Amino acid sequence: MNTFGERLRLTTFGESHGEAIGGVIDGYPAGIAVDFDLLRRRMDERRPGKAHVSRRKEEDRVEILSGINEEGVTLGTPIGFMIRNTDPHPSDYEKLRDICRPNHADFTYQKKYGIRDHRGGGRASARETACRVAAGALAEQFLALQGISVEAFLWRVGGVGGTEEEMMEEVERVRKELDSVGGIVSCKISGVSVGMGNPLYDKLSARLAYAMMSINASKGFEIGDGFAMSDRKGSEVLDAFYTGADGIVRTRTNHNGGLLGGISDGMPIEFKVAFKPTPTIGLPVPVLTVEGEEREETIAGRHDPCVAVRAVPVVRAMACLVVADYLV
Amino acid sequence: MNTFGERLRLTTFGESHGEAIGGVIDGYPAGIAVDFDLLRRRMDERRPGKAHVSRRKEEDRVEILSGINEEGVTLGTPIGFMIRNTDPHPSDYEKLRDICRPNHADFTYQKKYGIRDHRGGGRASARETACRVAAGALAEQFLALQGISVEAFLWRVGGVGGTEEEMMEEVERVRKELDSVGGIVSCKISGVSVGMGNPLYDKLSARLAYAMMSINASKGFEIGDGFAMSDRKGSEVLDAFYTGADGIVRTRTNHNGGLLGGISDGMPIEFKVAFKPTPTIGLPVPVLTVEGEEREETIAGRHDPCVAVRAVPVVRAMACLVVADYLV
Amino acid sequence: MNTFGERLRLTTFGESHGEAIGGVIDGYPAGIAVDFDLLRRRMDERRPGKAHVSRRKEEDRVEILSGINEEGVTLGTPIGFMIRNTDPHPSDYEKLRDICRPNHADFTYQKKYGIRDHRGGGRASARETACRVAAGALAEQFLALQGISVEAFLWRVGGVGGTEEEMMEEVERVRKELDSVGGIVSCKISGVSVGMGNPLYDKLSARLAYAMMSINASKGFEIGDGFAMSDRKGSEVLDAFYTGADGIVRTRTNHNGGLLGGISDGMPIEFKVAFKPTPTIGLPVPVLTVEGEEREETIAGRHDPCVAVRAVPVVRAMACLVVADYLV
Amino acid sequence: MNTFGERLRLTTFGESHGEAIGGVIDGYPAGIAVDFDLLRRRMDERRPGKAHVSRRKEEDRVEILSGINEEGVTLGTPIGFMIRNTDPHPSDYEKLRDICRPNHADFTYQKKYGIRDHRGGGRASARETACRVAAGALAEQFLALQGISVEAFLWRVGGVGGTEEEMMEEVERVRKELDSVGGIVSCKISGVSVGMGNPLYDKLSARLAYAMMSINASKGFEIGDGFAMSDRKGSEVLDAFYTGADGIVRTRTNHNGGLLGGISDGMPIEFKVAFKPTPTIGLPVPVLTVEGEEREETIAGRHDPCVAVRAVPVVRAMACLVVADYLV
Repeated sequence: MNTFGERLRLTTFGESHGEAIGGVIDGYPAGIAVDFDLLRRRMDERRPGKAHVSRRKEEDRVEILSGINEEGVTLGTPIGFMIRNTDPHPSDYEKLRDICRPNHADFTYQKKYGIRDHRGGGRASARETACRVAAGALAEQFLALQGISVEAFLWRVGGVGGTEEEMMEEVERVRKELDSVGGIVSCKISGVSVGMGNPLYDKLSARLAYAMMSINASKGFEIGDGFAMSDRKGSEVLDAFYTGADGIVRTRTNHNGGLLGGISDGMPIEFKVAFKPTPTIGLPVPVLTVEGEEREETIAGRHDPCVAVRAVPVVRAMACLVVADYLV
Repeated sequence: MNTFGERLRLTTFGESHGEAIGGVIDGYPAGIAVDFDLLRRRMDERRPGKAHVSRRKEEDRVEILSGINEEGVTLGTPIGFMIRNTDPHPSDYEKLRDICRPNHADFTYQKKYGIRDHRGGGRASARETACRVAAGALAEQFLALQGISVEAFLWRVGGVGGTEEEMMEEVERVRKELDSVGGIVSCKISGVSVGMGNPLYDKLSARLAYAMMSINASKGFEIGDGFAMSDRKGSEVLDAFYTGADGIVRTRTNHNGGLLGGISDGMPIEFKVAFKPTPTIGLPVPVLTVEGEEREETIAGRHDPCVAVRAVPVVRAMACLVVADYLV
Repeated sequence: MNTFGERLRLTTFGESHGEAIGGVIDGYPAGIAVDFDLLRRRMDERRPGKAHVSRRKEEDRVEILSGINEEGVTLGTPIGFMIRNTDPHPSDYEKLRDICRPNHADFTYQKKYGIRDHRGGGRASARETACRVAAGALAEQFLALQGISVEAFLWRVGGVGGTEEEMMEEVERVRKELDSVGGIVSCKISGVSVGMGNPLYDKLSARLAYAMMSINASKGFEIGDGFAMSDRKGSEVLDAFYTGADGIVRTRTNHNGGLLGGISDGMPIEFKVAFKPTPTIGLPVPVLTVEGEEREETIAGRHDPCVAVRAVPVVRAMACLVVADYLV
Repeated sequence: MNTFGERLRLTTFGESHGEAIGGVIDGYPAGIAVDFDLLRRRMDERRPGKAHVSRRKEEDRVEILSGINEEGVTLGTPIGFMIRNTDPHPSDYEKLRDICRPNHADFTYQKKYGIRDHRGGGRASARETACRVAAGALAEQFLALQGISVEAFLWRVGGVGGTEEEMMEEVERVRKELDSVGGIVSCKISGVSVGMGNPLYDKLSARLAYAMMSINASKGFEIGDGFAMSDRKGSEVLDAFYTGADGIVRTRTNHNGGLLGGISDGMPIEFKVAFKPTPTIGLPVPVLTVEGEEREETIAGRHDPCVAVRAVPVVRAMACLVVADYLV
């Protein structure tokens, strides 16, 4: 099921080293002059080939195939788009044909489908997130028109937080060790008014969790004070309401992260997503061969030392898709 | 949207203090002789009126309306069921008519719908989870027939872990303080073979997160080592594969919690769910009146000092529903 | 899959001769004072025990279980309802245990599920349509508030059309012959403005067809001039636009039945549904025994000589559900 | 909502005269060596530029972007495909910018979205059916592996039936008159075993009706004897069961068209789809201008005199998609 969303729906396709990756954005409103600069900017943020992230060079040019007319205005019809795979070095991956790497999806894909594109993770590659970022940028623009902004930023890397500089130093340090490191991405959605989300099963918090856990390498999600709240007493985390001078009801604190009963309460929606260390590292790792044997192998290939760094624009994109889904 | 699941679908209805709560279980296989003892046992585990949990007495008798024939065998048709509300003390809740309690869904429901059943939280009440537990028990029985077991247990209460005894002491302590406390529930699903779950958006981990974040008062979800993984290096958390004497491929460790690329890898699926402290406490709390004013109020009523305690069977039930959804 | 609708969703349960039938209406707007008279009236129209239709006496009292408060106002939460089965004569059906009747669902249910409730068709019984009519009445009331009305009427019975009187005479005639007869129901939806429906796959016409073909015994659907249009030339069936004195664009004719490209064009939406003769007749019929043998059998039991008569309120109900789905 | 199907899902994009049309086929099984000849053949059947159908020349080359490896074997991942628009004569359509043609979707699209691609119907163009045919061919191949075949053929044109020759003469006759004509397509699905389809709302017949009514210009659907059954008595249309020498239960006649209670009964599934005459004709037609005025206009452009002719492979494709959806 390669579709995300109920009303604003993204359907994607593409293997990391196939002909192209791409998708269809369905349900996007008509009559919006697309901000291609924003699209470009978001794609650049995710793009490998920058410092700190994978050295694979991808131009990542988004080719629009439909849904936007010659004046750059959306038609209300599905927006088809495609990104050609311009830097496939399949020979790099030849040795992956017959092994399954630890912490990767090689093993589960092979068992589930009986066949897989071994080149760079195939469909399971983080390359697919380029499609999420492209769609997310369109959603972000739509949300901005509704007065909603979505920010995502790196919160912690390998236990190091605080400043961007310190986190990047940590990333460089593990890169030099030929290792990788985990991290946490934080996200804040501002401008959502009271009432977004369904009660019970389809809570806004549930949808956000679903979206974030769908990102490659994510292993945890928490909203508001999250796990820390489980260590607290009720009297310590009550978000007291008050009516502001503008007549709007807010809470004095935001332990709940902008949601009560799964429905937005008008405060900023704040959540965090935990990412595991990039599975692929430069050090030798234990792999499983097709004969079912365990052996050590050093995997060549270009990889991110910290998938969380590159996940920042993906978290933002997915948050934009989740929120826009309610408003289209 | 009061429906949960894709193929095995639970649709529920009912306000906490209305006529009845209940639901429809759709997609349950035909020809299964229902284990009513298991159903009874699971309902008892969730039922208030026990030590440590709410003193509200609910008999919680599940009345089957359809889908099961006179011999107790499922017909493959939807199983309608109902639980009459037998202990409604609506007068207890009279003062809630005109106020919104902090950390509760009162405010968001009122704003979203313009109307709400103020009695005991109405639809947002944890009472609704009785329906989840009833459906979960049927799902659990079905899974057992497939060799799959699901266990849930209390992991930590207010920062206290270790033994059941210590956690219960902590619950009693906060109860006496007229306060409440948060907690963490841990869950382990054993017996799932390789290949369950869809890649990309609809990962099994994403579905589990969605299910768990839909439970009242849950604020966080993590799978495997979860948030702790974000502090680690790649070389420290590699789950090395090996082929057992039985010819089955397993991993030597389970940092990933039984999922790779969102698809089950044959190891036990292990996750945790964080719950905030029960919003309702015996101490005076700041409330919002219908006039938009903030004031202190002492809320009468029966409540759980630790919602996580009562959430244990609910976590199990939701896990059963998620997994059974793939197998019906 | 016993759920109908996307946003306004009806989920039903219940065997014809089990404990009860009922359902859950999810997505119905909050704050509407329910017109219980309309509900009663629509239930009466469908109810057996009247002239021309089945002699089974069903009181068909709809018991509301949730979603409507004590003042009769909807809460926006799911409306659970139940209709007890008060006239089960299971002994009538004893001989059905071991045979499959022709033109009935006995055979397909038995093969699909390996088990079935043989009493009166079980889940496949037309009794289930009582739930559709109940939900349809609520939808109808909601539509009336939007200025939309839905009318359904008997168009033809066994080739006889024209007046109600003639059609009823035909029904009586076949009843006396211990036979049954087919019929056509016509439906007209007025007040829908331009733009309802999605293009391409999820056309409004496709949704109406899906809804109507889901009614027991329906075998055909046509919109506007329907099948007759396949015999005509393009120049003969052009619905010319004009702008009325009120500034509203209409068409001079309505060959297309109120839809262009699957989207409402502002004209009344008109369609017809063909029903086969009631499968159960008083004459001896060829049945299949569990041993796989063919033999003649006279089936006792109360039945409608013309299912189309009783389908009229069901067609209306389903049309109301389809249209309301877009507007809730 | 440009997605069709539940488990085997086709999502399409593209305007008739934009950059490209295309789609994503999701849920197609892994490990199937694609029969590109069949794909080519089906595309050719639908392709304009042949006798009797539109003179527009489209090469209709299906470019596969993902989901099929270099050996032509499916990977189980989404199959992205694209068909470049190679014959856009947008100047032909310049005069359509400011008018709405009768019986076309121009008016409803314009009102619904406030914007439309006026060139050749844009998204509403029958050109979109090329994507359906491409996906249908893959579904057809999968069904053949399951022993299921799907045939569609022209049943009647403008009231003329019988032989292919007579129907084609009728088409030529109306073409010369610069007019168009309606028609009926018949379809037969063989090899489906007992039990396909869900009871109640999601009947197989309902799904087929939904699929067929989603095809451009379709105005009616009937299964088995369909509308004719409404004129008959019950005793005349009973499909008596018998057990064949091979031990398989069949019915002696097939008035019900292979479905009982909405579930396949093992007999061939037979249905018909009525198509209206092509809206675009060579004769002057009344149009609506953007100023809301009615006037006569002669529409240039290449068109089919009988959309039913070209609909034959589309009906087959949609039938294949519907049936394959249950079996993937």
